[in-house]
Amino acid sequence: MSEVRQGGRPRDEQVDRAIERAARELLAERGYAGFTVDGVAARAGVGKAAIYRRFPTKQELIYTVAIHGGSGEPPPDHGSLAEDLGAVCGTLATQLAAAPPGVYTGLLADLYGSSGLAARFSEVFLAQQRAVLEEVLNRAVARGELAQEPDPLVLHALVVGPLFVWLFVLGGPPEDVGKLVDTVVSGALAVLR
Amino acid sequence: MSEVRQGGRPRDEQVDRAIERAARELLAERGYAGFTVDGVAARAGVGKAAIYRRFPTKQELIYTVAIHGGSGEPPPDHGSLAEDLGAVCGTLATQLAAAPPGVYTGLLADLYGSSGLAARFSEVFLAQQRAVLEEVLNRAVARGELAQEPDPLVLHALVVGPLFVWLFVLGGPPEDVGKLVDTVVSGALAVLR
Repeated sequence: MSEVRQGGRPRDEQVDRAIERAARELLAERGYAGFTVDGVAARAGVGKAAIYRRFPTKQELIYTVAIHGGSGEPPPDHGSLAEDLGAVCGTLATQLAAAPPGVYTGLLADLYGSSGLAARFSEVFLAQQRAVLEEVLNRAVARGELAQEPDPLVLHALVVGPLFVWLFVLGGPPEDVGKLVDTVVSGALAVLR
Repeated sequence: MSEVRQGGRPRDEQVDRAIERAARELLAERGYAGFTVDGVAARAGVGKAAIYRRFPTKQELIYTVAIHGGSGEPPPDHGSLAEDLGAVCGTLATQLAAAPPGVYTGLLADLYGSSGLAARFSEVFLAQQRAVLEEVLNRAVARGELAQEPDPLVLHALVVGPLFVWLFVLGGPPEDVGKLVDTVVSGALAVLR
């Protein structure tokens, strides 16, 4: 028995990797709208059942391969709120800009249709971002840079909002997102202080 | 001939109104994901062809009945950039919050699939917002409040971004969007000055 199970694992992991690689490739080529489970199955050389056993919906598969929440760890302490916040926003901008075309807007639209996905998006992806912002605010309070900790949800909106709409709504040049990060941090600091 | 055409117009307008009313009702009840042209046709008592003659896609119909870009006019001159910007952001927040569930995120996801819709969203909806922001910035330059006019695209991202993600990504309480408007305006002013 033990041998069978040990023999099964590497094969399962191979299938895992083949599915995820095929999904990443298909997403990069076709974007969110052109992504299908059939296409992933054909490219990975597996049956659709093997995919649905691992990912109950197409959206769960896309989320897994395309949305990277980072380590979830706050940045090293740079000694100032301005630098900590700059590091956090720089990471956020990189994460958002790295997603294949249409992934964030597509997933966002499909969140309502899948309570599991909505929960994971909110409780993992967004909650991790918020925890990082809270840690950075706590450090600033401990340093005496801020008199009291502001609402992390407001800070979250102030920093992620402009980056999100720049990339996915307003059609801002992606190469200028770094300059926007500096502006966003300046505006947030002015409000926090 | 003239009588026939005059007789035809009120009937066409009746159909226009019936379709748009049915679409608004269906959207309010079912949200973006549950909205179908079949459903609108049944509720309006018209054939699907009558709808597709007016709106080439479901998304065009939703855009027409659910997205209100406001008058496109800048607010009255309040005599200060802070008050002008507060008025613009307040209107933006009201427009965004008034849309039925899933409309903005759904349309955004579907923009890639329809070049006509993408053009209208960008050239009408977003361009009108940007023109209003430019007018408000021009007034501030004329008053001597600003030394030079900043990039309106950056200001657009700074003001619409936090409102958008508050309502449609982060799950912020809609009743607190007014407080967020004040914060957004403070942050934007600090960056502009």
